[in-house]
Amino acid sequence: MKHAGIWYGGDYYPEQWLNHPDILKQDMDYMKKAGINTVTMGMFAWSFLEPEEGIYDLGWLKERVDELYQNGIYTIMGTPSGARPKWLSDKYPEVLRVDDTGRRQLFSGRHNHCFTSPVYREKVKRINKKLAEEFASHPGVLMWHISNEYGGECHCSLCQKAFRLWLKKKYDSIEDLNRRWCTAFWSHIYQSFDQIESPSSIGETMVHGLNLDWKRFVTDQTADFALWEVNSLRAAGALQPTTTNLMYDFKGLNYHRLAQTVDVISWDSYPLWHKENEVLTARDNGMQHDFMRSLKQKPFLLMESCPSSTNWQGVSKLKAPGILSLASWQAVAHGSDSVLYFQIRQSRGCSEKFHGAVIDHYGGSDTRVFGEISQIGKELSCLEELAGTGVKSNAAVIYDVENRWAMEDAQGPRNNGLFYHETCVKIYSAIKKLGFNVDVVTMDSDLSSYQLVAAPMIYLYRSHIHEKLKRFVQGGGQLMVTYWSGIVDEEDQCFLGGVPHGLMDVLGLRSTEIDGLYDGDCNYMVSLPGIGEEKRFECRNLCDLVSLSGAVPLLIYEKDFYKGYPALTKNSYGKGTAYYVCADAGQDFYDDFFRNLTIEAGIKPLLEGRLPEELEISSRESERYEYLFIQNYSQKAVKLEEKTLSCIEEGTLLAGKIFEDGKIDGYETLILRKDVR
Amino acid sequence: MKHAGIWYGGDYYPEQWLNHPDILKQDMDYMKKAGINTVTMGMFAWSFLEPEEGIYDLGWLKERVDELYQNGIYTIMGTPSGARPKWLSDKYPEVLRVDDTGRRQLFSGRHNHCFTSPVYREKVKRINKKLAEEFASHPGVLMWHISNEYGGECHCSLCQKAFRLWLKKKYDSIEDLNRRWCTAFWSHIYQSFDQIESPSSIGETMVHGLNLDWKRFVTDQTADFALWEVNSLRAAGALQPTTTNLMYDFKGLNYHRLAQTVDVISWDSYPLWHKENEVLTARDNGMQHDFMRSLKQKPFLLMESCPSSTNWQGVSKLKAPGILSLASWQAVAHGSDSVLYFQIRQSRGCSEKFHGAVIDHYGGSDTRVFGEISQIGKELSCLEELAGTGVKSNAAVIYDVENRWAMEDAQGPRNNGLFYHETCVKIYSAIKKLGFNVDVVTMDSDLSSYQLVAAPMIYLYRSHIHEKLKRFVQGGGQLMVTYWSGIVDEEDQCFLGGVPHGLMDVLGLRSTEIDGLYDGDCNYMVSLPGIGEEKRFECRNLCDLVSLSGAVPLLIYEKDFYKGYPALTKNSYGKGTAYYVCADAGQDFYDDFFRNLTIEAGIKPLLEGRLPEELEISSRESERYEYLFIQNYSQKAVKLEEKTLSCIEEGTLLAGKIFEDGKIDGYETLILRKDVR
Amino acid sequence: MKHAGIWYGGDYYPEQWLNHPDILKQDMDYMKKAGINTVTMGMFAWSFLEPEEGIYDLGWLKERVDELYQNGIYTIMGTPSGARPKWLSDKYPEVLRVDDTGRRQLFSGRHNHCFTSPVYREKVKRINKKLAEEFASHPGVLMWHISNEYGGECHCSLCQKAFRLWLKKKYDSIEDLNRRWCTAFWSHIYQSFDQIESPSSIGETMVHGLNLDWKRFVTDQTADFALWEVNSLRAAGALQPTTTNLMYDFKGLNYHRLAQTVDVISWDSYPLWHKENEVLTARDNGMQHDFMRSLKQKPFLLMESCPSSTNWQGVSKLKAPGILSLASWQAVAHGSDSVLYFQIRQSRGCSEKFHGAVIDHYGGSDTRVFGEISQIGKELSCLEELAGTGVKSNAAVIYDVENRWAMEDAQGPRNNGLFYHETCVKIYSAIKKLGFNVDVVTMDSDLSSYQLVAAPMIYLYRSHIHEKLKRFVQGGGQLMVTYWSGIVDEEDQCFLGGVPHGLMDVLGLRSTEIDGLYDGDCNYMVSLPGIGEEKRFECRNLCDLVSLSGAVPLLIYEKDFYKGYPALTKNSYGKGTAYYVCADAGQDFYDDFFRNLTIEAGIKPLLEGRLPEELEISSRESERYEYLFIQNYSQKAVKLEEKTLSCIEEGTLLAGKIFEDGKIDGYETLILRKDVR
Repeated sequence: MKHAGIWYGGDYYPEQWLNHPDILKQDMDYMKKAGINTVTMGMFAWSFLEPEEGIYDLGWLKERVDELYQNGIYTIMGTPSGARPKWLSDKYPEVLRVDDTGRRQLFSGRHNHCFTSPVYREKVKRINKKLAEEFASHPGVLMWHISNEYGGECHCSLCQKAFRLWLKKKYDSIEDLNRRWCTAFWSHIYQSFDQIESPSSIGETMVHGLNLDWKRFVTDQTADFALWEVNSLRAAGALQPTTTNLMYDFKGLNYHRLAQTVDVISWDSYPLWHKENEVLTARDNGMQHDFMRSLKQKPFLLMESCPSSTNWQGVSKLKAPGILSLASWQAVAHGSDSVLYFQIRQSRGCSEKFHGAVIDHYGGSDTRVFGEISQIGKELSCLEELAGTGVKSNAAVIYDVENRWAMEDAQGPRNNGLFYHETCVKIYSAIKKLGFNVDVVTMDSDLSSYQLVAAPMIYLYRSHIHEKLKRFVQGGGQLMVTYWSGIVDEEDQCFLGGVPHGLMDVLGLRSTEIDGLYDGDCNYMVSLPGIGEEKRFECRNLCDLVSLSGAVPLLIYEKDFYKGYPALTKNSYGKGTAYYVCADAGQDFYDDFFRNLTIEAGIKPLLEGRLPEELEISSRESERYEYLFIQNYSQKAVKLEEKTLSCIEEGTLLAGKIFEDGKIDGYETLILRKDVR
Repeated sequence: MKHAGIWYGGDYYPEQWLNHPDILKQDMDYMKKAGINTVTMGMFAWSFLEPEEGIYDLGWLKERVDELYQNGIYTIMGTPSGARPKWLSDKYPEVLRVDDTGRRQLFSGRHNHCFTSPVYREKVKRINKKLAEEFASHPGVLMWHISNEYGGECHCSLCQKAFRLWLKKKYDSIEDLNRRWCTAFWSHIYQSFDQIESPSSIGETMVHGLNLDWKRFVTDQTADFALWEVNSLRAAGALQPTTTNLMYDFKGLNYHRLAQTVDVISWDSYPLWHKENEVLTARDNGMQHDFMRSLKQKPFLLMESCPSSTNWQGVSKLKAPGILSLASWQAVAHGSDSVLYFQIRQSRGCSEKFHGAVIDHYGGSDTRVFGEISQIGKELSCLEELAGTGVKSNAAVIYDVENRWAMEDAQGPRNNGLFYHETCVKIYSAIKKLGFNVDVVTMDSDLSSYQLVAAPMIYLYRSHIHEKLKRFVQGGGQLMVTYWSGIVDEEDQCFLGGVPHGLMDVLGLRSTEIDGLYDGDCNYMVSLPGIGEEKRFECRNLCDLVSLSGAVPLLIYEKDFYKGYPALTKNSYGKGTAYYVCADAGQDFYDDFFRNLTIEAGIKPLLEGRLPEELEISSRESERYEYLFIQNYSQKAVKLEEKTLSCIEEGTLLAGKIFEDGKIDGYETLILRKDVR
Repeated sequence: MKHAGIWYGGDYYPEQWLNHPDILKQDMDYMKKAGINTVTMGMFAWSFLEPEEGIYDLGWLKERVDELYQNGIYTIMGTPSGARPKWLSDKYPEVLRVDDTGRRQLFSGRHNHCFTSPVYREKVKRINKKLAEEFASHPGVLMWHISNEYGGECHCSLCQKAFRLWLKKKYDSIEDLNRRWCTAFWSHIYQSFDQIESPSSIGETMVHGLNLDWKRFVTDQTADFALWEVNSLRAAGALQPTTTNLMYDFKGLNYHRLAQTVDVISWDSYPLWHKENEVLTARDNGMQHDFMRSLKQKPFLLMESCPSSTNWQGVSKLKAPGILSLASWQAVAHGSDSVLYFQIRQSRGCSEKFHGAVIDHYGGSDTRVFGEISQIGKELSCLEELAGTGVKSNAAVIYDVENRWAMEDAQGPRNNGLFYHETCVKIYSAIKKLGFNVDVVTMDSDLSSYQLVAAPMIYLYRSHIHEKLKRFVQGGGQLMVTYWSGIVDEEDQCFLGGVPHGLMDVLGLRSTEIDGLYDGDCNYMVSLPGIGEEKRFECRNLCDLVSLSGAVPLLIYEKDFYKGYPALTKNSYGKGTAYYVCADAGQDFYDDFFRNLTIEAGIKPLLEGRLPEELEISSRESERYEYLFIQNYSQKAVKLEEKTLSCIEEGTLLAGKIFEDGKIDGYETLILRKDVR
C-alpha cells in the first residue's frame, strides 16, 4: 500500500455535485482541514461512468482522483456493480432478480442484480475493464473496492440451472443426494437433478438439506461473481489489492468463503450507541471486529462508520461527545488499519439524505461533528506506526454461519428462539472482559494455536470440527462446549448413536434429552451441596439432560423433574480439559466460569489485576512492540488496581493519560507501547 | 376388529430404513419389549410404492406387514395421498394447489393436493387399488387409514367450476342465491352462476354468504375426495373398516360432514403440557376427545400422540414423568380404544427429525421415555375389557364449526375477538369438573337424550337448532344460552323482528343491544341487592342488554349506563328451564352457575361429594360394567371427601390406589369397575 | 338549497327492500316520527339502475324520491360509481385496479375502480347522465353526492402512462426531473420519461421525489375523475350543488385539491367514544370538523355518523345516553349544516349488517337509539336559523398532508415514529381549550387574517409557506414553529445552508443537530435557573439542538450532553413574535405555552375566565348574531367561574340550561345567542 499510517476518510460521491464546482472545492478544503487522507469513489457512479450503453465517460472521475492525489488524498476505487443504470434493467430484464415466488422484481434500489446473469457479468466486466485501464497504475489509487455489501439471492431460471449444476458437482448421484437430504421423508425423492427447485415460500421449505445447500450455492455464486469482478480488473492490468465490504452479523452469506475472493477484509460498523450501556455495545461491536480480523488473521479495514447518527435505524441517536473517538480507536485496537466514514458529504435527496457525514447540508466546518472528526484525524496522524501491526490471541470462540443456518432452520427444541448470536456474544464478552485478545473463528479454522476454545451450540458439524476439537483437548487445550451440540452432519442429517457426536468421550457424557422452557420460565444452576463456594446462576430457554460417563458435575439443576441432574460438567481428556455447559446461562455464569477456568489453567491476560467492567483491553503487535489499548466505555472515570497500574508503568503512553489517583477518564482511550523484542 | 384390547403403538416408516436391516430388526425387538401391538404404515410411502409412474413396488411393505403380524403386531394401512411423489407434480401440474390469489404452488410439503383434479383422483385410485388388492384379506391388517390430516383449499379453475356446480345444486336460481347472500348490498348482484369466483384476498372477502358456502364446498369436496379413496379400496375388495385422522380445534373443515365418509373417528392429540396448570390442559384436551367421540357417539381412536416432546410447537417442552401415562389414560377414559404415538422411530432428516418417538436417534431402549412407554404398554394389556365400551353423558355443549365460521367472519360487536372457543372451553370445564360425562355436539345432533344442554353463542342457526332447543326445554330440559345468539340464518342473513330468533319465548326476553368492551375493560355481574347470597363475577368483551318478557333476573350489571340491567336470567318454559347469560363471564361464574343448576335440577354426577379441582372424572360403560376413571392432574396428592370415598368403595379398583388417608397420589389414574346390571 | 334549517337524516338504501313494501312504508313512518328531512340515495345502487349493460331502470328510484318529497323529505342524490356491477368488471377487466406489484385485482368490495380507465369513465358518464336527466330539476333533490369516500390507487398500464404525462407536464425536461428527484443517488438517473415506473414494493421505494409525485398524481387523477363525474351531471342539465364525502385523518389524498372539484365539503365522522376521556375524543374529532370547514371556509355537511355503534372498528362500543346528542351538536357548532347518519335502515347481510342505524333488524321504534334520534330531530328543528352561519377564527394550525407524506416517507431521525398527527392534535387542543375557534389550514392557505399561527413540523415547504410565515410575523402575528421544520423543498430535496430554511432570521436561530430518543426515554424542558416561575415539562422522541442568533431561550434541556441548550425560544421580528419549540413536548407544555402566549399577545377567546377542561367552546356567526356553543363532555356537572357566567348572561340561551350554582349538567349542550350588530 502506498501511504504509511492509518487510512482516514470515507465514501465520497462527487458525481452528485458535478455542477457545483464550489462544493467540490469546499470538499477538498474541508478534507484537508480534517486530516483526511483517503476516499472511496466510484461505487454508485455507473450512470455517470456509462450514461448510455457502451458510451463511457471516466473523465470526471480521473479529474477527481488526480486533484485529490495532488492534495495528498488517496483513492480506493469502487466498482459500480452495486447499483445498475436504468437503461441496463430496461434493455436486459434478466439482470433483475426473481424472488422465491417467481416474481421478477422491478428496477429499484441497489444490491439486487442476478449474480448468474451472463449479461450482467458481461456489462460489469466491461465497465470494470474501463476503470482498470484508467487507474491500474495511478499512484493515487490504493485499492479496488469490489461492488458493495454483497447480499440477497435470485431464483430466476438461470440461477435454478446453476444451482442444479452446483448440486451435480457436489453429489455423486441423485441417489446420493436423496440419501443425504433424507428425502424419503414425506416421499420427496428426486428422480433426477433436473427436478430440483430452489426453496420457496410457495414451494419446498422443509427439506433442510436443500435449504442449506441453497444458501451455500448463494454464497458460492456470489463469491464467483466477486471473483469475476476481480478477474475483470486483473485482466485489464490492475495490480492494487482488492477488498469488498462486509456487514454486521450478516446471515445471508458465508463470509469465510467470500473472503477468499479478495485480498483484504473490510467491513461497515454501525453500532447502536446509547441504547444500552456503552461497554455492552462495545463488546458486541468488538466481537464483529474480531470476527472480521480472524477471517484472514491479518489487519482489516473499517470501511464505513458514521460520524454522527445514521438515518436507517429505528431511532437516529446522536453520539455523545467522545463516542466517535472511542469507536474509531476500537477499530484500530482490534486490528483495523483504517477509520473510514460513510460519508464525506451528505446527499441532498433519496433514502440516505439524513445519514450523518463529515460535511452536512448546512455545509459549515464549525459543527460539533466536524470538530471531533478533525481531532481524531490529528491523533491518527501521530500514530502511523500502528498500521500493519498484527493481533495475537490465545482464546477463540467458534461462530459459524452454516451452523447457524442449520440450527435456525430446523424445527427443534425451541422454535421461539435459540439465541445463538446472543450466546456467542455472552461467551465472547466473558473472555474479553478478563483482558484477552479473542479470535472469532469458524469451523474451518485451525485451532492449534489457542489455549482456550469456546464452542457454543455446535449443532452442525463440518470441516471435521469434532476431530479438531478432540485433538485440541488431547494436546492440552481448554475446551468449552454447550448444549445442542454435535446433533447433525453437514447436510443436517441427525447423528445416530448418541450426542454430542464424536465428543462423548472428550466430554465424558451423553446428552439424553433437551427441555425447552417457555419465555419467562427459568431454572437455576447451583453448586453441589456442601462442595466449595455456594453458587446459583439463572438459566433459560434450553436445559440439556445429560448422562455422565466420566465427567464430574460442577453445578446441578435446582428444580423441575431433573433437579439434581448435572448443569455444568468437567472432564479431563488427554492433556486438556473439556467443560460442558448444559443450559442457556446468563452473563454472570459465563463471567464466573471463564474467570475460574483461565486462573486454573494459567492462561494469562494482557493486563494483570481485576479489571473494571467498563474497560476494554486489546493489543496489536509489531516485531518490536506490543501496543496495548485501554478504553474506558464509561462516561465516568474508573480506577485501576495497583497490580494493573504497575503493568502499565512498564510501557510508554502514546495517547491518553492516567490521573494521579490511578483513574482513567470517562470515554478515554489509552495507548501504551511496550518493547517485546 | 381382529385383536381384542386397546391398540397400542403408532406411526411407523420402515421405508426410511430399508437399507438398514439392523435397524428394522431392532425396531421389532423394541416394539415387542414395549408391548406394542399396532402400527400404521404406508402413509407417506408413495415414492416407494410407485417410484415411477405406473411402476409399483409393494413387496417391501408386504414383507413388513407379514413380519410384524408374525410377531403379534397388527397394521393400520395408510393410503399415501397425503404426500405426492415429485414425478406426479412435475408431469401433472394440475395436482398442485392454486392459492386464493391465483398462484399455482410449487411441489413441497404435504397435504396440498387439489381435491378436484381428475388426474390426482385417478392416480390415488390406482395406488389405493394396488394396496387393497394386496392387503384386503391380510389377517394382519386391521383398518384402512385414509390419507392424513385433510385440510386446506384450492382455488384452481377446476375447483372454481366445481364450486359453481355445487352452488347450482344448492340454490334454486341465481336470484335465490342473490337474495340469500344479500348481494343487493354494494350492488354485488350476480347475473349467472358462471360469474361467481371463490373468496380471495385480492377479490371478494365481504360477501359472508359466499365465504360460508365456499367453506362448506371445501368440506364437501374434501369429503368427496375421502369417499373417492374409500370407494377405491372397496372396489378392489377391501373389507376392513376405515378411518382418517382429525386434528385439534380445526377450523378448516366441518368434521361432522367428513366423519360420515369413514367408519371410525380417529384424531391426533398434542396438548401443550406444563404451559399452564395440568388440569387446565387436560380439560381443553378432554373437550376435544369428547368432541371426537360425539361425532359418531361410539369409541374412537387416539391416532397420534407424542411420547416425549413435539418439535413443531413454539417451545418443545419435555413431559414430566407420569404425564404420558395420564394423557394416555385420559384418551381411554374419554372413549378411545387406542393409544398410538407419532412415531415409532425418529426420522433422520427433514422437518420432523426432532419430533419425539418411541425410539430416538440415540437408539437405545434404556431411555426414560422408552421406560414409560413400556410401563403403559404393560398396564394397557391388563385392561383389554375396556375396548369397545361406550360413554353415556347427560350433559352436552353445542360447539358448531359453521357457526364459528360465520361469527368470526362477520364484522360485528368485537372484531378484536369474540372468544368462541374459549367460552366453550369454560362452559365445558365447569360441567366436567362437577364430575359429569359431557358430549360436545354440533347443531346437527339429536339433543333428546340430555338433561342439560349448553348453547354458547349460537350466532348462526342451522339444522333447525332453535326448534330442537325449544322442544328440549318443553320436554323438561335445562338449557343455557348466551349473548350473541340467534342472530343470522344459515346464509348469514340477519333475522328480523328481534333476537335470539325463535327463542325469545323460551328465554323470556329480547336482546336489544350489545356492547363491545375494549381489551382491559370489564364490568361485573352482581346479585340483586338483598336477594340471596351476595355474588360478584367479572365479565369482559361483550355485554348484552336485554329486555325481559317473563324471565327473572338472577344477576345484574354493576356499572356503566346499563347498571342494574339483567346479566343472568332464568325462565320456566314447558317442563324445563332456560337460562340466558348476558355477558362474557369468567370461569368462576360458570363454575358457580352449573353447580347450582345441576343441584337445583337434580342432575347426578358420576361421583358424589365436592371434587377437588385437579381431578378429572370420566366413565365408560359396557352392558355389565361401569368403568370409572379418576385422574389426578396435580403433581401433589389430593384428598377426597368421605362421601366420594364411599362411592368408590362400592366398586373394584382395576388400577391405581387410594392412600389410607383418603388421598390419591400425584399424577395418578384410578380405574374403578362397578357392576351395573 | 331548497329547505331551510339543518339537514337531518342519512344514507338510505331502499333498493335492498324493493320486495318488501311493508318495510318501505315503515321506513317512511319512522323517518317522519324521528324528524328526518333528508336522505342520501343511489350511492351503491348501480346494479339496480343498470341491471344489464345499457338497460336502465330509474323508475323505482324516482318513485322513492317522489314519495319522500311528498312526505317532506329531501334527497341527496348519489352517483353510483363507488361500487361496480359484476357485469362491468367481467366484460371490461380494465376497470379493475392493478396493485403495486402488478396484480390485477378481482371483482370485490367497493372504492376500487381504476380512475384512469376510459371504459369506466364512459360507463360512469352514461349512468350519471341518466340520473341527471331524471333528477336535474326535481324539487326534492337537494344536491349531488359524487361517488363515495374516494381513495386508493391503481398501477395499471393506463395509469402508468397517465403518470408519465403528468410528470412531463410538471417538469421542464427529464434532466430537470433527475435533478429535483436527486436521482444521481445510487445511479438512478432516467434517460426519458418513458422509463418511469410507479413506486412498488417489488421495485422503487426510495426515490422520495417519485413517491411524492406519485401521491400527487393519485390525488390529481382522483380529482380529475371526480370532475369528470360532476361534468357528466352538468352536461345533462343538473343544477344542484355537488359534494363528495371525505374521511377522518385520511392520508391517501390531498383533500385540499379534491375539495376544488365540488361545491360543498362533507365528511364522515366516526369517533371512538368511551375509549379515552370524552373531551379528548371531542378535541380530536373537532379538529377534523375544523379541517373540513377550513377547506372552503364555509359551512360543511356531516354526511355520515353512527347513531349507535359501528361494526368495523376493533370494538363496537355503544354510545352512552347523551353522547349522540353531544356529537351531533358538535358538528353544528363547528360549522356543519347537517346531521346525517349512516344509515336509515340496517342491511340484512354482508359486511355492514351490524353497523348501527336509525332502524335496526328488530325493526321497532321503541328502541333507546330511536328515542335519542327523535329527540335530536326535535331540537334541530327548533334551530333552523343556524343553517348557513359562518365561523370566524383568530388562530390557525397548519396541517398539511403533502408535508406528512414527505416526512413519514423519509428515513430520518426517528423511523419508529414522528407523531405528526399527535403533535398537531396537542397543539390544536391547547388552543381550543382556551376557548378559541381554530382553523386547521394547509400550506396553500392565506394566513393574513389570523393573530396566531402554529406551524408544527413543517418539514417540507410548498406554496411559499416560509414567505407567508415571514410576512405574517412581520405584520404582527404570533408564530409558533417546532423542530423538524424547513428541511426539504417540494420534491423532498434538502435545503443547504442551514435550517429551518428561510426562517432562521424570523426565529433567530439555526437548528444544528436533532437527537432521536428511544421509546421510553425522555428529557425535560426546564426554566432557566433563577428566572421567573419554575417549570419542568417532559419531552420525548425528538430533541433539536439549536444555535441562537438573536432568539432568547425561555426553557432549556435538563440533561444529556445538550443539558442547558435551548428547548424553547422567542424572537421578536418585525411587529410580531416567533417561538421555536425544540422538542416533542407533552400536552401540559402546550397548554402552558399557549395560555401565556395568548395572554401576553392579548388575543381574546370566545369566553372569559378559566374554562373547565371538559368544556368545548365554539361559535358561529350570522350577520346579526353570534351563536355560542358550550358543550360539557364530562358525565358530571362542571362549574363555571363568575367571569364566565357574566359573559353568558349577556346572551339568550336557545338550548340547555345553567343551574343556579353556576354548573352545567353532564353531557349538556348550551347554545347562546348574542346580538353582534
